[in-house]
Amino acid sequence: MNQAIGVIDSGVGGLTVVHELMRQLPKESLIYLGDTLRCPYGPRSEGEIKTFTWELADFLLEKNIKLLVVACNTATAFTLEELKKHLSIPVIGVIKPGARAAVKFTKNSHIGVIGTEGTIRSNAYPRALKSISAYLRVNSLACPLFVPMVEQGVLSGTEAEQMVGETLLPMKEQNHIDTLILGCTHYPLIKDTIQKVIGSQVTVISSSEETAREVSTILEFYGQLYNGTISPAHRFYTTGEMGVFAKITEGIFKESAEYFQSVTIERAVLPY
Amino acid sequence: MNQAIGVIDSGVGGLTVVHELMRQLPKESLIYLGDTLRCPYGPRSEGEIKTFTWELADFLLEKNIKLLVVACNTATAFTLEELKKHLSIPVIGVIKPGARAAVKFTKNSHIGVIGTEGTIRSNAYPRALKSISAYLRVNSLACPLFVPMVEQGVLSGTEAEQMVGETLLPMKEQNHIDTLILGCTHYPLIKDTIQKVIGSQVTVISSSEETAREVSTILEFYGQLYNGTISPAHRFYTTGEMGVFAKITEGIFKESAEYFQSVTIERAVLPY
Repeated sequence: MNQAIGVIDSGVGGLTVVHELMRQLPKESLIYLGDTLRCPYGPRSEGEIKTFTWELADFLLEKNIKLLVVACNTATAFTLEELKKHLSIPVIGVIKPGARAAVKFTKNSHIGVIGTEGTIRSNAYPRALKSISAYLRVNSLACPLFVPMVEQGVLSGTEAEQMVGETLLPMKEQNHIDTLILGCTHYPLIKDTIQKVIGSQVTVISSSEETAREVSTILEFYGQLYNGTISPAHRFYTTGEMGVFAKITEGIFKESAEYFQSVTIERAVLPY
Repeated sequence: MNQAIGVIDSGVGGLTVVHELMRQLPKESLIYLGDTLRCPYGPRSEGEIKTFTWELADFLLEKNIKLLVVACNTATAFTLEELKKHLSIPVIGVIKPGARAAVKFTKNSHIGVIGTEGTIRSNAYPRALKSISAYLRVNSLACPLFVPMVEQGVLSGTEAEQMVGETLLPMKEQNHIDTLILGCTHYPLIKDTIQKVIGSQVTVISSSEETAREVSTILEFYGQLYNGTISPAHRFYTTGEMGVFAKITEGIFKESAEYFQSVTIERAVLPY
């Protein structure tokens, strides 16, 4: 099995999933497609999100991937079930892994979720959590400013802390949650700032780490992990400017260059 | 889907997996079979371990389970692949989940594993870890006294700390691991003592918690989670004395009686 794992995302946020996949499954080759040109998906209509997500999936399916990761929470919320129904390869979204990890960690059964407007509006996390246990209490909060903040490279420092602090105030004031799900793949990039604001008593769950973990579980379960000795080769596609994409990518992988060898960045041309 | 999840174990250690399954999947019914009469499996021959494990599996298969958890590390090490090959339902062992979680947590790629003589002799954890990444360093240590200690109810206090301290000394002296896998389902019962001895800088991984998490992943992936409204009913079987088993069970579930409603304990009669 020398097929690659495919990862689609609305932009660069899904690279946090890629980072974890490289770390947790270092033998696997990855193909990434980020729709930077049309990012963010959060404020878009359901119809647009579905159409765009299918275009991304089709682009990677032609590259003979063995598993598809929908690394964008918004795309997962609206399109995962459709993709699972129609594709013959396993499809994994980022919502259920985050929900399952939260259930594992919580002691007081009170869980917070933050995400884009689209993800929060979809109610996908509360639904996933309540389907596991009807007794969980869930508080959701849309944080529309976080994605633009991350895309601008504001990840820590006074400005970031102030913005995160003001946004999370309603969640913090309730003061009940013991577990907080980062329901957007951009947010792991500001995890330290979020942890500082929300307090050390709250376990902060990164959907990205948890999704990588479940990709590993499913591939092993299907006997599809790569067991050969050929070094992995990764291909990254963006619908936007390659220069900008390369710079952001470099930033995300800067502390772990060893995972980032053999990466090719190309321009994706989608049918629009 | 109102079929139960089956859990087999060499004795009472697997109840830590049951405890986590009840917590993480509160809608599911469970059937447990503990081979208390022939516990421990750790020092037994490969042939004996395989024969016994198949007897346990056959007993539960007749009860129409939808998934089988091999909650004993020793049984997993020697029999999991055979069971997976021959059974038509998903079979999940405790070794891969623990290994995957360790890879997720480790920062310095240096992982410790403790377990019974049988599990350590089988080399199953180092093999599982190295199959994920050849660059991991793994230190293994057999702790033959821990299971008898737990079965006698010695879980904390001076005596437990002294015994755990002396046993873990070789692991502690190397002072390199940042993650320690509890490669025996009895060990979560002495997790606090182990954490105290090994130090707070080491992340201690409970295979039990991680296995429950993966059962949730696999059942959801197969669309086999129970979605109805009937309260779960649990059945526990032991090959040994029902009184003793009930007492130990009560001890394990004492702080979470809400998960332990509707449990029936019966005597299992196996063909020997």
